[in-house]
Amino acid sequence: MQAIVKEKRAPGLTVKSVPKPVPGPGEVLIAVRHAGVCGTDLHIADWDAWAQGRIKPPLVVGHEFAGEIQAAEGHIVCGHCLQCRTGNSHICRNTRIIGVDRDGAFAEYIVMPATNVLTLDGIPTEIGAIMDPMGNAFHAVLTAEIPGSTVFVVGCGPIGCFAVGIARAAGASRVLASDVNPKRLALAARMGAQVTINAAKDDVVKTVLAETAGEGADVVCEMSGVPSALHQAFASVSLGGRVQLLGIPTAQVPIDFANEIIFKGITIYGVIGRKMYKTWHLMRRFLTSGQFDPRPVITHKFPLTKIGDALTAIRSGDAGKVILEIA
Amino acid sequence: MQAIVKEKRAPGLTVKSVPKPVPGPGEVLIAVRHAGVCGTDLHIADWDAWAQGRIKPPLVVGHEFAGEIQAAEGHIVCGHCLQCRTGNSHICRNTRIIGVDRDGAFAEYIVMPATNVLTLDGIPTEIGAIMDPMGNAFHAVLTAEIPGSTVFVVGCGPIGCFAVGIARAAGASRVLASDVNPKRLALAARMGAQVTINAAKDDVVKTVLAETAGEGADVVCEMSGVPSALHQAFASVSLGGRVQLLGIPTAQVPIDFANEIIFKGITIYGVIGRKMYKTWHLMRRFLTSGQFDPRPVITHKFPLTKIGDALTAIRSGDAGKVILEIA
Amino acid sequence: MQAIVKEKRAPGLTVKSVPKPVPGPGEVLIAVRHAGVCGTDLHIADWDAWAQGRIKPPLVVGHEFAGEIQAAEGHIVCGHCLQCRTGNSHICRNTRIIGVDRDGAFAEYIVMPATNVLTLDGIPTEIGAIMDPMGNAFHAVLTAEIPGSTVFVVGCGPIGCFAVGIARAAGASRVLASDVNPKRLALAARMGAQVTINAAKDDVVKTVLAETAGEGADVVCEMSGVPSALHQAFASVSLGGRVQLLGIPTAQVPIDFANEIIFKGITIYGVIGRKMYKTWHLMRRFLTSGQFDPRPVITHKFPLTKIGDALTAIRSGDAGKVILEIA
Amino acid sequence: MQAIVKEKRAPGLTVKSVPKPVPGPGEVLIAVRHAGVCGTDLHIADWDAWAQGRIKPPLVVGHEFAGEIQAAEGHIVCGHCLQCRTGNSHICRNTRIIGVDRDGAFAEYIVMPATNVLTLDGIPTEIGAIMDPMGNAFHAVLTAEIPGSTVFVVGCGPIGCFAVGIARAAGASRVLASDVNPKRLALAARMGAQVTINAAKDDVVKTVLAETAGEGADVVCEMSGVPSALHQAFASVSLGGRVQLLGIPTAQVPIDFANEIIFKGITIYGVIGRKMYKTWHLMRRFLTSGQFDPRPVITHKFPLTKIGDALTAIRSGDAGKVILEIA
Repeated sequence: MQAIVKEKRAPGLTVKSVPKPVPGPGEVLIAVRHAGVCGTDLHIADWDAWAQGRIKPPLVVGHEFAGEIQAAEGHIVCGHCLQCRTGNSHICRNTRIIGVDRDGAFAEYIVMPATNVLTLDGIPTEIGAIMDPMGNAFHAVLTAEIPGSTVFVVGCGPIGCFAVGIARAAGASRVLASDVNPKRLALAARMGAQVTINAAKDDVVKTVLAETAGEGADVVCEMSGVPSALHQAFASVSLGGRVQLLGIPTAQVPIDFANEIIFKGITIYGVIGRKMYKTWHLMRRFLTSGQFDPRPVITHKFPLTKIGDALTAIRSGDAGKVILEIA
Repeated sequence: MQAIVKEKRAPGLTVKSVPKPVPGPGEVLIAVRHAGVCGTDLHIADWDAWAQGRIKPPLVVGHEFAGEIQAAEGHIVCGHCLQCRTGNSHICRNTRIIGVDRDGAFAEYIVMPATNVLTLDGIPTEIGAIMDPMGNAFHAVLTAEIPGSTVFVVGCGPIGCFAVGIARAAGASRVLASDVNPKRLALAARMGAQVTINAAKDDVVKTVLAETAGEGADVVCEMSGVPSALHQAFASVSLGGRVQLLGIPTAQVPIDFANEIIFKGITIYGVIGRKMYKTWHLMRRFLTSGQFDPRPVITHKFPLTKIGDALTAIRSGDAGKVILEIA
Repeated sequence: MQAIVKEKRAPGLTVKSVPKPVPGPGEVLIAVRHAGVCGTDLHIADWDAWAQGRIKPPLVVGHEFAGEIQAAEGHIVCGHCLQCRTGNSHICRNTRIIGVDRDGAFAEYIVMPATNVLTLDGIPTEIGAIMDPMGNAFHAVLTAEIPGSTVFVVGCGPIGCFAVGIARAAGASRVLASDVNPKRLALAARMGAQVTINAAKDDVVKTVLAETAGEGADVVCEMSGVPSALHQAFASVSLGGRVQLLGIPTAQVPIDFANEIIFKGITIYGVIGRKMYKTWHLMRRFLTSGQFDPRPVITHKFPLTKIGDALTAIRSGDAGKVILEIA
Repeated sequence: MQAIVKEKRAPGLTVKSVPKPVPGPGEVLIAVRHAGVCGTDLHIADWDAWAQGRIKPPLVVGHEFAGEIQAAEGHIVCGHCLQCRTGNSHICRNTRIIGVDRDGAFAEYIVMPATNVLTLDGIPTEIGAIMDPMGNAFHAVLTAEIPGSTVFVVGCGPIGCFAVGIARAAGASRVLASDVNPKRLALAARMGAQVTINAAKDDVVKTVLAETAGEGADVVCEMSGVPSALHQAFASVSLGGRVQLLGIPTAQVPIDFANEIIFKGITIYGVIGRKMYKTWHLMRRFLTSGQFDPRPVITHKFPLTKIGDALTAIRSGDAGKVILEIA
C-alpha cells in the first residue's frame, strides 16, 4: 500500500509503497479515508529536537484519521495503570501515539486495537479525520461550565477556532477571540466569535474588560502558548474564573502567582489529549446533531502524495486545518 | 394606588384602591410595570385548602413582576440561617413569599428589601415580570450537565416550555417534550423541542428510547407532577442519568425504588425556587445575549383590572404564561 | 477441586468435586483463599423467585472472594457500551456477575478476566474477600461530601456497619445509625457510630433532629430497604442534603414527592455496585493506611464444607459478615 | 479602652487608650477575648512597602480575634457585587479588612457588621481568635477531595501545620509535609504528618515519589510562597492531581507550563480568604466535634501590652501561632 514514511534520522518524508499491515488479536484493520495533518507532523518532517528524541524510523506517520466506518482515538493507553483504571486514561504514562511511537495513518491502511475504535454514526470521514485535534478543543471547553458564560479564546489556530464554535454551540452567552493574524481572526469570527481582538494592534485585556462590564471572562481557553498571551489570559479571567491551558510555551514563563492567580481565586486546568471516551462521546453528539460544524476550519485538502504541499500550507501560518484525501 | 386584593377568607379577588406603600430602611419602592399571573394566584382566588392554611387576608396578591428598572426575587430569605450562609438560601426555612406571606405585586407599587432587587440591564419589564417562574426552569435545567446531552421535558406548561428553550440554548444536542395537550406540545415545538410526544396517544417511554438509540435521555425534567408522568420520567432516563423534579404531585406516588432508581444508578434532584443569585445571574445572561427568547410562551396580556379574565385563561389549560400590564 | 455448586432448579447447595477451571486468553487462574457469603447466596440456596428467573444450574456459586495475591471485582462488564466507555461501567447493562451468571468463587480455584483483578498490596485475603460488599458501602459514602458532615446510616447490616466506619474514617463530624436489632446497633457503635437509634422503640426522626440542632443529617445512607426506614431517611436529611439509596425494597413504596423531596431541595443517588475502579482504589487506600478496619464486622468464619452453617448464621439476622476459609 | 494603634506613617505600634467604639445600625459591639497575631501585623509594624501603600493611620490593628460569645469573619464584603451574589464573596473586590482598612481587634472592643459574626458554639475564644488563618487552611484542604487521598503540605508555618491536621481529620490516607526548619517539621509531625521532609537537606520530590509508589501526591497544598518549593509542588503532584496555592511569592517565578502543568493534566486553585460561610461552617464542625485540635500550633500567648514580644516571636521564624490574651 501507499504510505508516507519517515525513513531515516534526517529531515524529510517519503511517499512509498509498504506492506499492508495485518491485525493481531483484539485489533482491527481500517481502510483510511481522510487524515488530518498537524504541527506534530511538521516537527517529524523537519526532524527537530523533539522528533530526534522520540521518533524511531522507519515509521509511517500521521495520527489524525478516519476510515471505512470508524474513527479512532490515536492515543493507545495501557489500560491497567492507576490513571487508566480511575477514568484518567488521557494521562496514562504508558501512552503510545500512532504516527509517533508506532506506525500511523498517512497510509491506505492502519491497524488499531479494537478498543480504540469509535463508530462515526454518519459523520463524514473528512470530519472524522480531525476528531483528534477537535477533541482537544472539546476537552478544553466542556471541562468548564459553559452555558451562560463569557468565554475568551486566546489564539485562533485550528484548535482555537474549533473552541470558539464549540463554546457557542455549548451555550456560551458571549465568545471573544484574540490572535495576531487577521486571517485567523476572520476564521474565528466565522466560527461564531462575537468579538475578535487583534493582539498585534489592540489592548487585549482592556478590550476583554470593556466587553464584560469590567468583570473579565468567566472561562479563558489559552490555545497559543505565547508568553504575552498567557499573561493576557490571567489578566482577562474574572475573579473566581477558570483558565484552560492547552497551548505549549517553548520556554519557561515568569508568573506573578500572587496577582495573576492566588488573589483572583481562579482555577487553572492543564488540557492534554481527550477524555477517553467522554470527550469523544460528547463530540460525536455535537457533530451528529449538527449543532457544531467544524468544516469552515478545514482550509486545505491534498491527496496523499502531496504531503509536501500540505506541510507548506501549515508552515505559512495562514492555514486552518489541512487534511489528506486518501481513498 | 390600584391593587388586586384578597380581602377576606372566601373565594374571590378584588380590584380596589389601597395606600401606596412606604419603604423602610434597606427597602426600595418599585413602580410595577408588568406582573405574571401564576397557578398560585388561582389557588388564592379559589380559596382552596392550601390558601386557607397559608394566606392571611387582607393581602395584595401577585409574586412575579418587574418595574421601573428592576426585577426582584420574590422569596425574601432570612440571611442568617445555615442554608442562607452556605449558598442555599433558596431553601431557607424562614422564606416569606410576596403575594403569599406579605403584600404582593398586583399593584401600582410594591416595597421590597433592596437586597432582593436585580437590575434588568435592558430586559423589557414584560419579560422581567416572568423571571420568577422562568428562573425555576433555569434552575432545573442548568443544575444538570446540558452541553451535548439529550434532554426530555415531561409536561409542557409554561415552565416546561421555558425548560425546552433553555435546554436548546444551553447546548443540548436533542430535546424531547411530552404532554397530553396538543396546544402545549405545539408551543414546546416552537420553543425548540425536536421531538414532541402526545402522552394521551403515544407510548412515551418507547418513543424516548427509540429516539435515543435505546439509551434513554441523559437528563429528564419532570414538570407535570402527574403520577404516570413521574414513572415515565424514571423509565426514560438513561443509566446513570439525572432526573430533575419540579412538578408537584397532589398525593403520594408508589415508587419501585429498585428498578426505577437504584439499579439504574441515577441521581434525582428536587428543584425549589431559584439559586440566589446564581440562577438569576445566568438567566440575565441568557436573556441579554438573546440566546433564549421566552416571549412565545407569553400567550395572554391583560390590564390590572381584568384579573378575572387572566384567571379564566389559566383555568382553560391552554394558556402559556399570562401577564398583567400595570403601567 | 472442591466447590459449592447449585446443581439443579430446586432448593439446596451441594459441596462436590468439579474440574479445576482453565484460563483462556486474557484470563487468570486464582487460588481462592477467603470468600464472603452474602444474602444473594441465600436467595440462590433457597431458590426464590429472583433465583428462578436468573440462575442457570449447574453453577459454582459465590461472588465475594480474595485469593493468592489478588482480589477481583465480581462484575464482569462488556467494556464497549456507552456506560463502560464514559466511566460508568458499574451500570453496564451487559454485566455478568460471578456466582450468578457464571461460575463463582466458592471453590478452590476461579478463572477471571485479567482486567478484573486488583492487587491486595498487603491486605489479608480475609479482608480482600469482602471488598465487594464493602465496596458498595465505600461507593455509597464517598460519592457524598463527607468531611465535616453529619452522616446518618439507616440499617446496620454488614454494609451499613461498614458505612458507619467509612464515614468516620472519611472525616464525618458525627455519625448516627438506626436499626431494629440491638446486636447490629452494638456493632454499629463499635464501628464508630456516636449515636445509635433503636427504630423499634425510639422516634428515629425526632432523635436525628435533636442530635443535629434541628437541621437534620447532611448525608443519609439508606441501607435497609424497609419502607418505614425510607420515609425516615427523607425526613431526617437536612434541607439541600443528600440521600444515598442502597437498600432494596421488595415492593413499591408510596412517596410524598412534594414534602419528602422537592420542597427540601435534596439530591438522591442510586448506589449500585462499585465504581470501576475508583471505588476499589480508594477502598484499598483506606485499608492499607489502616484508617478503616472492617474486621469487627466479620462475625463468622466457616470452612467451605460448612456452607449450610454459614447460611444459617445469615438467616438468624444477628450475623455481621460471614466468610468461608477455603485454603 | 486599651488598644494597639498604628499612629503614624512610620515603623512601630503603640499601646494606648482610645475611645470605645459605638455600633451603628446592623452592627454589634464585641468584647475581644483573644486575638491572633499574624505576619500582616508585622508588615504594618515594620511599615514596609505594602503597608505604606495600603494602611491609613491612625488605625487600631489586628484582624484575627474572638470575643464574648462570637467570632467574626474579618473580611467585610459589599454584599451586592457579582461575586457576593453568586457565592464567591471571598473574592469580592470591595473587601475591607479589619485592622488593615478599618479599625481592628487588638483592642478591648471592636464593632463589626452583625452579618459577619459567627457563634462559637462552645469553642474557646483562644481558638476562635485564630479561626481566620485556620480558615484559610480549611479552605485550601476542603476544596480538594481528601478522603483516601495522599496530601503533601509544602511549608509548615502555622497555616501549613493547620493544613496537616485538617487533612488527617478529613480522611486523608497519608500526609507528607516539608519545610527547611526542623522545629516546624516537628510541629507538623505532632499535627499528624506521617512523613516530614527537611527541604534543606533531603531531595523533596524524590522522597514524595518514593513514599507514593512513584505516583506523587493526589493533593499538594503550597503554603510557603518559596520559588523552589513551588517547583517541588508541581513535580510532586500526581498526574491529574490538584495543587492548592496559598503561599505568596514575593516576585515572579518562571514556570515550565508544558511539563509542570499541561502534560500532567493537573488542576490548580488559588486560595484566598475563606468561603463565606461554608468554610466557617465546616471549620466549626471540625472544632466542636473534636476531630481536629489546633492547639499544638499555638506556641505563644502574650497580654495586649506585650505586642512587641509577640512580633519578636514571629520574626524568629520558630513560632507557630502567636495570640494576645485581652480579657
